[in-house]
Amino acid sequence: MNDIDIENLKGIANQLRIHSITATTAAGSGHPTSCLSAADVVAALFFGHMRFDPKDPHYHNNDRLIFSKGHAAPLLYAAWAEAGLFPVEDLLKLRQLGSDLEGHPTPRLSFADVATGSLGQGLSVGVGMALAARLDGLDYRTYVLMGDGECAEGSVWEAAALASHYQLNNLIAVVDVNRLGQSEATALGHDLGAYQRRFEAFGWRTEEIDGHDLEEILEVLAAVGLGKQPLVILAKTLKGGGVSFLQDKEGWHGKPLSAEEAAKAVAELQPSAKSGLAHPIEPPTRLPAPKTEAPATYLPIAYNLGDLVATREAFGTALLRIGQTDARIVALDADTKNSTYSDKFFKRFSERSTECFIAEQNMVGVATGFATRGKVPFASTFACFLTRAFDQIRVAGISTSNLKLAGSHVGVSIGEDGPSQMGLEDLAMMRAVIGSVVLYPSDAVSAEKLVEQMALQKGLSYLRTSRPKTAVLYKNDESFPIGGAKVLRQAAGDKVTIVAAGVTLYEALKAADALKAAGLGVTVIDAYSIKPLAKEVILAAAQKTNHLVLTVEDHYPEGGLGDAVAGELSSEGVKVHKLAIRELARSGKPDELLARYGIDAQAIIAKVKTLAA
Amino acid sequence: MNDIDIENLKGIANQLRIHSITATTAAGSGHPTSCLSAADVVAALFFGHMRFDPKDPHYHNNDRLIFSKGHAAPLLYAAWAEAGLFPVEDLLKLRQLGSDLEGHPTPRLSFADVATGSLGQGLSVGVGMALAARLDGLDYRTYVLMGDGECAEGSVWEAAALASHYQLNNLIAVVDVNRLGQSEATALGHDLGAYQRRFEAFGWRTEEIDGHDLEEILEVLAAVGLGKQPLVILAKTLKGGGVSFLQDKEGWHGKPLSAEEAAKAVAELQPSAKSGLAHPIEPPTRLPAPKTEAPATYLPIAYNLGDLVATREAFGTALLRIGQTDARIVALDADTKNSTYSDKFFKRFSERSTECFIAEQNMVGVATGFATRGKVPFASTFACFLTRAFDQIRVAGISTSNLKLAGSHVGVSIGEDGPSQMGLEDLAMMRAVIGSVVLYPSDAVSAEKLVEQMALQKGLSYLRTSRPKTAVLYKNDESFPIGGAKVLRQAAGDKVTIVAAGVTLYEALKAADALKAAGLGVTVIDAYSIKPLAKEVILAAAQKTNHLVLTVEDHYPEGGLGDAVAGELSSEGVKVHKLAIRELARSGKPDELLARYGIDAQAIIAKVKTLAA
Repeated sequence: MNDIDIENLKGIANQLRIHSITATTAAGSGHPTSCLSAADVVAALFFGHMRFDPKDPHYHNNDRLIFSKGHAAPLLYAAWAEAGLFPVEDLLKLRQLGSDLEGHPTPRLSFADVATGSLGQGLSVGVGMALAARLDGLDYRTYVLMGDGECAEGSVWEAAALASHYQLNNLIAVVDVNRLGQSEATALGHDLGAYQRRFEAFGWRTEEIDGHDLEEILEVLAAVGLGKQPLVILAKTLKGGGVSFLQDKEGWHGKPLSAEEAAKAVAELQPSAKSGLAHPIEPPTRLPAPKTEAPATYLPIAYNLGDLVATREAFGTALLRIGQTDARIVALDADTKNSTYSDKFFKRFSERSTECFIAEQNMVGVATGFATRGKVPFASTFACFLTRAFDQIRVAGISTSNLKLAGSHVGVSIGEDGPSQMGLEDLAMMRAVIGSVVLYPSDAVSAEKLVEQMALQKGLSYLRTSRPKTAVLYKNDESFPIGGAKVLRQAAGDKVTIVAAGVTLYEALKAADALKAAGLGVTVIDAYSIKPLAKEVILAAAQKTNHLVLTVEDHYPEGGLGDAVAGELSSEGVKVHKLAIRELARSGKPDELLARYGIDAQAIIAKVKTLAA
Repeated sequence: MNDIDIENLKGIANQLRIHSITATTAAGSGHPTSCLSAADVVAALFFGHMRFDPKDPHYHNNDRLIFSKGHAAPLLYAAWAEAGLFPVEDLLKLRQLGSDLEGHPTPRLSFADVATGSLGQGLSVGVGMALAARLDGLDYRTYVLMGDGECAEGSVWEAAALASHYQLNNLIAVVDVNRLGQSEATALGHDLGAYQRRFEAFGWRTEEIDGHDLEEILEVLAAVGLGKQPLVILAKTLKGGGVSFLQDKEGWHGKPLSAEEAAKAVAELQPSAKSGLAHPIEPPTRLPAPKTEAPATYLPIAYNLGDLVATREAFGTALLRIGQTDARIVALDADTKNSTYSDKFFKRFSERSTECFIAEQNMVGVATGFATRGKVPFASTFACFLTRAFDQIRVAGISTSNLKLAGSHVGVSIGEDGPSQMGLEDLAMMRAVIGSVVLYPSDAVSAEKLVEQMALQKGLSYLRTSRPKTAVLYKNDESFPIGGAKVLRQAAGDKVTIVAAGVTLYEALKAADALKAAGLGVTVIDAYSIKPLAKEVILAAAQKTNHLVLTVEDHYPEGGLGDAVAGELSSEGVKVHKLAIRELARSGKPDELLARYGIDAQAIIAKVKTLAA
């Protein structure tokens, strides 16, 4: 690309500016000045540097561009329109209910791999994409356009550290240093040296440029991929850059121009504006596509009833097992792999494993990046530490990402490590993610089968596993469809339906045996699928027990199993009583804690007797 | 302190090592080797440097020490025991249910200001403490003991950036660089230069030392407070340091020694071990304590019924108002203060305001730090971005922190910005925090009164506010106790009880009017206190409407208002039906979105008609 017409690119940049202004003015909301600062960089990337098929945004070897500063969405939309993907007239539908050109990009759009708009997440996704390119032997590069304000987010530095650790020279960040945040200037303002020192300290190659000088931009882009380090281009820009009465002015964040202001701005820009359509875009290298189909079958499992196996270990065993026939599977962990047992996979498939160190936000972002490339990423850590990444998980839900999460060490049953290590709110968190599937196996067989289900299901799912060893309850050929439940005890005349999962299921079974011996029958259901819940199964059982249901969970009472059952079945007239952890837990032995916080067999027996009285 | 006996300190360090080993061996679990690496540093801090009253850990001008690497708890406990706070024999009760010496420190202990154990959070808390010291004119210093592994957490760099931005030279971090993480070596190993470059790039003064050389440790500690920058001491140590068969060996993380191994280790350490009791500890400067009592009253409010005011704006107005008579109030925001309206407080009380830039994890940690010093911190941002700090909020719950959070821009009612900016899972998140209070005002009067309640309540609370302007519903003298609800419409013969809050309350009122005109009466309840829920109020109403309840919420169906009501009232035989956001939302106008996702008056009317049929 020696023949780039700089004047042409400048004209395209101004055309992108005009679109950004007119679209936000038409919408009556949006962030035009955040688009203007990055317009030259984006014009250079799209029309002077990146290799992609503008008619086929999903092509597997296209260079990727993540708009981490998602509020500059109109600029992204303008670039794709000018590249010919859709009519420029559509840009005026910005932010309308009928249009996919939303306020911030989402994957409803073919060219948005992930939703952006929650700042500081894009670089992590980019790390995942860059790792996937290396794994698949593809030469696409991953570009991440970031704002300067979002560099305050720690997740950026988690991603930066990992990118240099894995020497991702196919990853390029561009920071649009426009100096102005939403409510005031950023902490570092236009001190590009400060950004440079930080990125260099985190192992990156850095280039400082004038982000409005297209020759400079193209020059540093031409040197992308040199050396082993990832590259960050620190672009000094002006917010509102290119329009005299907007640029570098405070008070313009997130404000559309009035019609008059827009006309004035367009009048400044129009004389030099040029369409992008006439400009050649470099095509991607045509290379074979990686396999993204699931295998026909997985290897079998072989447990014996009564074997004592922790579900967290069964998760690790399953990951290794399905990984043997399913090349899509990749594993990630945050320095807990010897506790989550993902190390079984790590040891066998090191090239498909990513140690993310103690940085859960980035781990989830990297996993999301892998998922965009057709991989099936399983990211694991203690359940409680997944709360660290709730925003990334939330956004993965909006991205309809094929993300798989596994959280171990749930509830008070972990014992002595104490409350900071107990996952007691993870069900509430994961249920509240749009489109999520939430699974909670009790034994090794169901854990193994549910890991298979997760790999085959398209979308975000979560596996909740426990620390203690528990007895195998099911035969190896039992199936565990998502949305199902197992009725383990049921007889005519049962007085109460107990719904449990994980360690409390065993307490429920113990209680059922004791109650039966005392002449009081109870139905026991293994609710291994918390979301979607097997509503019909539980309802049918409840209808036979005078509509009395008792849920028992190693979780706080809010948002967990009890709320799930009550929330779905209360409307049917089912009376749901809950046993759950209602106090701040302490360190202690697992059995002591189950007893103290009222979720053991004794507590269940006492409650059932009250209910049946 | 020129007369420090180095040999004595070395002996104390070894005594701390012995305690750490014997306590974890007695407990049968724990992290002895993570204690050993930091034993010399801790001995130096406690017995050779810090100024505090060992009999009064809460004294307001004591130097503070945050054990961010909370898994080294036995070392902390040993130091306090050796300082004379409690008998050393108690150390053997480590991790027992009856003991406050839990697996990781919690504020059940007088000397633990916050719970630690979720890594990477301590430095943020330290920033809050250091800011509080400056605000209160106290000369205590804040020390944060960190592990090297936790430096991978982005929250550390958020805190580092803010600490240097505010020139907190009263904040000292010590990083115990022992090279080994849980499952493998850390990414940086013993490359202290890499840590140094990172902290320096983030604006810190750095000192590299041999963390087992007490003279070096004391020398750099003696220079604490020099200059304007915060100081990080990078201590090169050996995991298991001091015991020949443990030090610098992999495979020892989180493992207690067997009795034989412990005896062998103690035999190595015993000859030089010395009690800390004989050693003088430098006392703190005696200075007046800052005021930590609430004022008798707050200034009055003056709204007119029907005034259109967004609850987010009422939050800002209230913050400023109560801040005028309540010096305990401090405000924090993450570059959204002109949207959350906390800028009203920021402008008036800049010295009590902390701009945290776009770094929500750190903001919550800093607020938690303020709370430990008797301040009442209100941290605000968009509700959806509080998910970024869920782990910090979770741990603040374990810390029984007096933390106040305000999340604005909830639900689809924000409109055009789209799903990434919509708080649709915040109720689920905040309800699941142990001990939390969750409040959701609909109008300006209730918002103002609830901010007062938050300031007066001791504990963690959350205020959910909305973007659109809504009509004032209540008179200025109405009171809104936590745990209450308001019955706004009720008449004999009502068919359904509608429970709503925020924008959906207005839709419910519109629906009630329309239904009444059509001859169908409904009860309408403003459930402004989501947790604790006004169970009795709702139950009493439901009993008059054939046990039929309809909840309507601008939130996902999981874990929000509907689940709260169903979870509490289903056991009473109440039938709870839910209207909530059941799809991935889009950009659009607020009214269009309420209609599209089925939570507007029309949807309520249709549902009520079905229920009452």
